[in-house]
Amino acid sequence: MNSKIVLGQNQYGKAEVRVVKITRDTARHEIEDLNVTSQLRGDFAAAHLAGDNSHLVATDTQKNTIYAFAREGIGSPEAFLLRLGEHFVSSFDWVSGGRWEADSYRWDRIQAHGAAHDHSFVRSGQEVRTAVLVRDGADRHLISGLKDLTVLKSTESGFAGYPRDKYTTLPETTDRILATDVSARWRFTTGTDFSSLDFNRSYGDVKALLLEAFTEKYSHALQQTLFDMGAKVLEAHSEIDEIKFSMPNKHHFLVDLSPFGLDNPNEVFFAADRPYGLIEATVQREDAEPAEAAWSGIAGFC
Amino acid sequence: MNSKIVLGQNQYGKAEVRVVKITRDTARHEIEDLNVTSQLRGDFAAAHLAGDNSHLVATDTQKNTIYAFAREGIGSPEAFLLRLGEHFVSSFDWVSGGRWEADSYRWDRIQAHGAAHDHSFVRSGQEVRTAVLVRDGADRHLISGLKDLTVLKSTESGFAGYPRDKYTTLPETTDRILATDVSARWRFTTGTDFSSLDFNRSYGDVKALLLEAFTEKYSHALQQTLFDMGAKVLEAHSEIDEIKFSMPNKHHFLVDLSPFGLDNPNEVFFAADRPYGLIEATVQREDAEPAEAAWSGIAGFC
Amino acid sequence: MNSKIVLGQNQYGKAEVRVVKITRDTARHEIEDLNVTSQLRGDFAAAHLAGDNSHLVATDTQKNTIYAFAREGIGSPEAFLLRLGEHFVSSFDWVSGGRWEADSYRWDRIQAHGAAHDHSFVRSGQEVRTAVLVRDGADRHLISGLKDLTVLKSTESGFAGYPRDKYTTLPETTDRILATDVSARWRFTTGTDFSSLDFNRSYGDVKALLLEAFTEKYSHALQQTLFDMGAKVLEAHSEIDEIKFSMPNKHHFLVDLSPFGLDNPNEVFFAADRPYGLIEATVQREDAEPAEAAWSGIAGFC
Amino acid sequence: MNSKIVLGQNQYGKAEVRVVKITRDTARHEIEDLNVTSQLRGDFAAAHLAGDNSHLVATDTQKNTIYAFAREGIGSPEAFLLRLGEHFVSSFDWVSGGRWEADSYRWDRIQAHGAAHDHSFVRSGQEVRTAVLVRDGADRHLISGLKDLTVLKSTESGFAGYPRDKYTTLPETTDRILATDVSARWRFTTGTDFSSLDFNRSYGDVKALLLEAFTEKYSHALQQTLFDMGAKVLEAHSEIDEIKFSMPNKHHFLVDLSPFGLDNPNEVFFAADRPYGLIEATVQREDAEPAEAAWSGIAGFC
Repeated sequence: MNSKIVLGQNQYGKAEVRVVKITRDTARHEIEDLNVTSQLRGDFAAAHLAGDNSHLVATDTQKNTIYAFAREGIGSPEAFLLRLGEHFVSSFDWVSGGRWEADSYRWDRIQAHGAAHDHSFVRSGQEVRTAVLVRDGADRHLISGLKDLTVLKSTESGFAGYPRDKYTTLPETTDRILATDVSARWRFTTGTDFSSLDFNRSYGDVKALLLEAFTEKYSHALQQTLFDMGAKVLEAHSEIDEIKFSMPNKHHFLVDLSPFGLDNPNEVFFAADRPYGLIEATVQREDAEPAEAAWSGIAGFC
Repeated sequence: MNSKIVLGQNQYGKAEVRVVKITRDTARHEIEDLNVTSQLRGDFAAAHLAGDNSHLVATDTQKNTIYAFAREGIGSPEAFLLRLGEHFVSSFDWVSGGRWEADSYRWDRIQAHGAAHDHSFVRSGQEVRTAVLVRDGADRHLISGLKDLTVLKSTESGFAGYPRDKYTTLPETTDRILATDVSARWRFTTGTDFSSLDFNRSYGDVKALLLEAFTEKYSHALQQTLFDMGAKVLEAHSEIDEIKFSMPNKHHFLVDLSPFGLDNPNEVFFAADRPYGLIEATVQREDAEPAEAAWSGIAGFC
Repeated sequence: MNSKIVLGQNQYGKAEVRVVKITRDTARHEIEDLNVTSQLRGDFAAAHLAGDNSHLVATDTQKNTIYAFAREGIGSPEAFLLRLGEHFVSSFDWVSGGRWEADSYRWDRIQAHGAAHDHSFVRSGQEVRTAVLVRDGADRHLISGLKDLTVLKSTESGFAGYPRDKYTTLPETTDRILATDVSARWRFTTGTDFSSLDFNRSYGDVKALLLEAFTEKYSHALQQTLFDMGAKVLEAHSEIDEIKFSMPNKHHFLVDLSPFGLDNPNEVFFAADRPYGLIEATVQREDAEPAEAAWSGIAGFC
Repeated sequence: MNSKIVLGQNQYGKAEVRVVKITRDTARHEIEDLNVTSQLRGDFAAAHLAGDNSHLVATDTQKNTIYAFAREGIGSPEAFLLRLGEHFVSSFDWVSGGRWEADSYRWDRIQAHGAAHDHSFVRSGQEVRTAVLVRDGADRHLISGLKDLTVLKSTESGFAGYPRDKYTTLPETTDRILATDVSARWRFTTGTDFSSLDFNRSYGDVKALLLEAFTEKYSHALQQTLFDMGAKVLEAHSEIDEIKFSMPNKHHFLVDLSPFGLDNPNEVFFAADRPYGLIEATVQREDAEPAEAAWSGIAGFC
């Protein structure tokens, strides 16, 4: 085979820029804590093929830009990424788009002497909030999300009625523990006027709906619960077109205590690490425009 | 040198037994989630020297015992470890003591439809609660603690007045971010009647005191804040003889934005990973009996 | 908006099945050590929408199948995945395809008394070998790869000639450390007769070429080195159509020792953790058939 | 209880200073890659009790010192720590001792065009080399070691003859997989003239002996293998007084394939994560002087 070897898709930038922004206009400080990644797309062929860096906006420059923009405030991860994307695409002719991502960490005020403290905070480890902006010229795909939100139901879950073949040994059950780490990503409808959205409020509401849906019904399988969680979000949020989930089924095995003369009526469980079930699915509006490109590079989502 | 080669200190057991206990006497379930390690000390020389396993209580047996004991309830990590220790020391003549450890993870009830749900939980990632029991015959050393409790003050902290030598370049500051991951371990007074203690209440109270002390005073150094945190706990809890801390100074460096024509009045920070300061100290009662052996094997505490 | 909410793309299965296979036909044992994930695609709508599990081949069954197939030998990660994929697609009418993945870990024989031991091994931590099979009906996309291969050049690397804007502060350099963790994935040409390939030999050869290309030329930027690495593989391996890289630029900053009266002629470096550059690109044959679907869900590849 | 609350043991410093040293006197570069922690002990009471930092040598200064000392060469982790310790104790009256620690990472030369390359390296992931110096005035305790050295025997291991109680369900076996991650720390004899030792050669030799001993005999329990490994080192190295091990028993469970009509003659195993056995012991010379203080703070060693 003598086919020519060429450069295909490519992007580059600075990853995991840890920026903490304190807003201290008053004695009651506010904290925003982000981990930002900036990657540019465009015409970088000469750098790859000829050692010509004249188009390579330094990753150090991208980092500096993130810190400089933070000086003017963050507001929400999504709004911050939109500003970064606009800057890079409008500043360099050969930059046609890119991908910007931010994880953010929540801090709560410490309770001291009966009140929430003005400038002392404790980090909430419950979940990580995520945001991704993928920009191709003027087209902007915006995806909010969360990960590592660990939930568990101690009853109202079972697994039965599945097909059996020669490799099937699993017994059916109608009462088990259902536990998972929720990873969810929701894409705002293409064409939405992003400036009209309150991303922080939206985020809080979606998280609450996901948790509530998890509690509501008997779960015949994690697949069913996943779908219900997604549908609940889409029903309440018309600005969201699709939501994707990647959720492990974190097995909690009932321990056989009968050798020790003990019963075990769903009380004592071994929480296993690996292997685990892995359930992934998209819940979407039937008429949602496809946006495959927006999802590229997000680990573990089909 | 022809000195004889012999077996020295030794212990063995099963590590990281993940046990989840659901108490479901009523529709309002309770969850306890532990990671338990059991290690025995005693006469195991024949196993090391002669391949004679007649004294080696199998680590699998230790694991089974943990699950069997969980069937009868956990109550608190400390109480559970005390029961395990009593069992092993009283069951096998050649087992003279041991070390038992439990990390535990907190779950909160999910809020759904305006109420805390009966059997659906979300894991709080804020900190991990720890407990260690070291037993030597009838002597019992009990250490409670926590780790990974991340806190931050956005002002009321500085660092100045330190000595300068030829390797010193650090500028003094009177307003910086102070951030750390609190790891603290407190030892109950030797001779305490452990059965009289409410370990869960004690734990919650100590955690609250640690957080409150962190907020209270201007911090001239993390060392000073550490001591104040420890003293506040000892003042309120006569059942505790000493408390040890190992706390990183998680540097948040002010970003120099002047090249971009911007000021930075303590608003934009780079949160660094490594290196970090590491501050370790014990706060104790002057008349506390030494208990060095109790602390052996706890990482990162001097 | 009253659009209907529907199920979109989905897959599920068992993740991270740790299988160790010992071949012991002779006294000289062989070891294969894999971490296998199996995910099925097909008609699983009823499970999501109606709690009807009659199509849900249990993830436990998928796990059992992996172990049962391992009994007949593994051979290579790629060959093993091809067999698993064939089994699931041919066994269940409603399973139209899926995604199978394996990481594998290399073990070397321990040298003892001057010889490589027959049945004692030490794990090589150098890199993790990866394989992914994506199957859609009869179409099979096969991607081999590696990750966590950490390399460093202590000279023959620079970065200069890049554009400067108001946020640029980075000085140019013509002699620096270049270090990265190579993550590379190469896709075998669509339509290849996979049964004719020796995947283990191919893997070893590609790894050697990647390492060799890393050493060969002065590097004007990691982008250039990346392209050279990819081109070298494609030139030598006609069975490969494209190769993708995701490589951090692991910054090693020269320490300023001048405050201490010392020079530092590229001798003492601070190895930073975060942020890091992130360089991602595809090197491909010009006439390669696109295979976007094959790459979905692989983290960190654009 | 009205006992006075006082400061107990304490130390502080800079942790995980990542230093990479390139020696480039000739075209054939050498690389040394360390992760260094420096902690000082002495009179720091005023900083803890009164906010007086006049004795607090800044952790930033400790970091600078590490980089400045690296300029003059590293040589071996042990030699580097000895120089650091000497500097701090001799430079500040109130510093009476301290603890210095270094992990180090091995790099191999890349093979390219048939030769080991002059300045291109690939990191060996096999194990991490460790060193700890604990200094109390003029007394110096020096401990070398390694961790994360993963080894496995596919036969010549069993576990039988252990006591059975009501919680014992484990069946005996005379042929199993034995696998562990070796963590070993060996202390040089008190009073040794450290300047006479070749630490790099000693390290390589001890590692080789540990691996060789692992292969040699049928293992009745990991305890027995551990002792043999330690004894082999002490027999060959008169400069070492004691060696401590902390080794997990990494269970590889034989998979029951009988439900699928298959036998499994020790060929297919499930490699479990948690729980795991944990075996810890000291092998020492009978007349070794105790040095308990030297071991304080090393995680997971009894």
